[in-house]
Amino acid sequence: MFSDRLGAAAQAIQAQFKHTLGQLDDVPVVRAMRHATHGGKRLRGFLVIESARLHGISSAQSIWAATAVEALHAYSLVHDDLPCMDDDDLRRGKPTVHRKWDEATAVLAGDALQTLAFELVTRSEASPEPAVRAELALRLARASGAEGMVLGQALDIAAETAEAPLSLDDITRLQHGKTGALIEWSATAGAVLAQADAAPLLRYARALGLAFQIADDVLDVTGDSATVGKAVGKDASAGKATFVSLLGLEAARRRAADLVSEACDSLEGYGAEAETLKEAARFVVTRAH
Amino acid sequence: MFSDRLGAAAQAIQAQFKHTLGQLDDVPVVRAMRHATHGGKRLRGFLVIESARLHGISSAQSIWAATAVEALHAYSLVHDDLPCMDDDDLRRGKPTVHRKWDEATAVLAGDALQTLAFELVTRSEASPEPAVRAELALRLARASGAEGMVLGQALDIAAETAEAPLSLDDITRLQHGKTGALIEWSATAGAVLAQADAAPLLRYARALGLAFQIADDVLDVTGDSATVGKAVGKDASAGKATFVSLLGLEAARRRAADLVSEACDSLEGYGAEAETLKEAARFVVTRAH
Repeated sequence: MFSDRLGAAAQAIQAQFKHTLGQLDDVPVVRAMRHATHGGKRLRGFLVIESARLHGISSAQSIWAATAVEALHAYSLVHDDLPCMDDDDLRRGKPTVHRKWDEATAVLAGDALQTLAFELVTRSEASPEPAVRAELALRLARASGAEGMVLGQALDIAAETAEAPLSLDDITRLQHGKTGALIEWSATAGAVLAQADAAPLLRYARALGLAFQIADDVLDVTGDSATVGKAVGKDASAGKATFVSLLGLEAARRRAADLVSEACDSLEGYGAEAETLKEAARFVVTRAH
Repeated sequence: MFSDRLGAAAQAIQAQFKHTLGQLDDVPVVRAMRHATHGGKRLRGFLVIESARLHGISSAQSIWAATAVEALHAYSLVHDDLPCMDDDDLRRGKPTVHRKWDEATAVLAGDALQTLAFELVTRSEASPEPAVRAELALRLARASGAEGMVLGQALDIAAETAEAPLSLDDITRLQHGKTGALIEWSATAGAVLAQADAAPLLRYARALGLAFQIADDVLDVTGDSATVGKAVGKDASAGKATFVSLLGLEAARRRAADLVSEACDSLEGYGAEAETLKEAARFVVTRAH
């Protein structure tokens, strides 16, 4: 059920990107945007669509917000991969944008993908309620800017030259910015779209986001690059503090499992309808990529 | 009157940036955002405040949209100045962000400034009407993404390696993206804030935006870098087609003057209240920086 719905979400998001980007001029920066938005698990977009379904919002409507968060995620990957940032050659098993084109195109494609995210959530198709569109955009800005994702990335860069290794609190704050804030936006989007109470989904998303990041650190140690689709072992060889280096491999796995239980418990009020989101939480810590 | 109001707008925008950025963590990326949002003419923000005043909207309200467009403009400058783009060391008479910090900080500060722009227009302070906030954000996205500013920048980069020099139509389209779209957003923001007809302000803005760019090309030939606050003569020495290279210096100046008349004529319906915006149009082609 979960994997079917994840696959269906991925297909719908891909179709939406094809439609949206197909309307733009066929210049290199737009081709780079297509490249950067192709593939990936689409976990964030799936969380939007499933949390919307829980509140009776169809995927025909939630697809706009789902595609928006995937555009924002894609922008962050394109810029993170730049030589002056993580300097990665491979992403989702394909060359990164600056390797396939050049750095200028990667900067611009990332910039335009961020803009596209805000366009998609404020288009009238995203919600018949203007208040919902404004709220989605405001929350997206707070999740992704200097209070959210960019702060996390900046703390990550600062950590590389810090004299003392990061503490568990530091890493938790850093990772909340880097990945947690956007996962929270995604999993609460359904409640925002329905103008309903977002508190249960927020509790779910907080646990899920942290579990997701711990699992990522575990994969960096235990995965191989062909399966993961990007370079692995980089954090360990760079001597970076991670959940695994701080907790140890087994304790990190246990912590992730506890967080999955916590995420599932948060959704009890939704009944059987929430089963797919619970499966998603279990998937996050057992995935191989 | 015009210079007083331009100065007042600049002060109000600076105070708004200080307040907004002062609430963020004092990390290098936030310090870089402060650096990048300091100074400048604030012409775009001024257009927001003045077009709002024409429609009876106070500067206490329009300051949010005015600061938003200046944040977006600042992001575009930080990224345009990067080594992989225009590779500039000097901006507004001060070192560019990547020179004062590094490239990673410049990428992230630009990213966060774009996000900040969307946060500022969707905050409830920007307008009591959610429909207005959503509309401001949607228009801002369209003006700045792969249909607007980023497209203009991409066409500019493509022009550098193009085999044939650009035509007047090409340059006009390129410059509409690079500067015109954001000037149009700014000058029509007042009508959007008031939910009024934006057509007269759009005509004004189209003429103003083109006049502004022609004047910029003239300054690149006739100005000196100390007064202009950035490197000059770069376009001519790079052999880039500009309005001046295509039209000649005198014809370019005449075209700019004609556009200023056109801009002023568009505002006839507003009566004496529009005098400041007319003065702004005259200033744009006579400025020395």
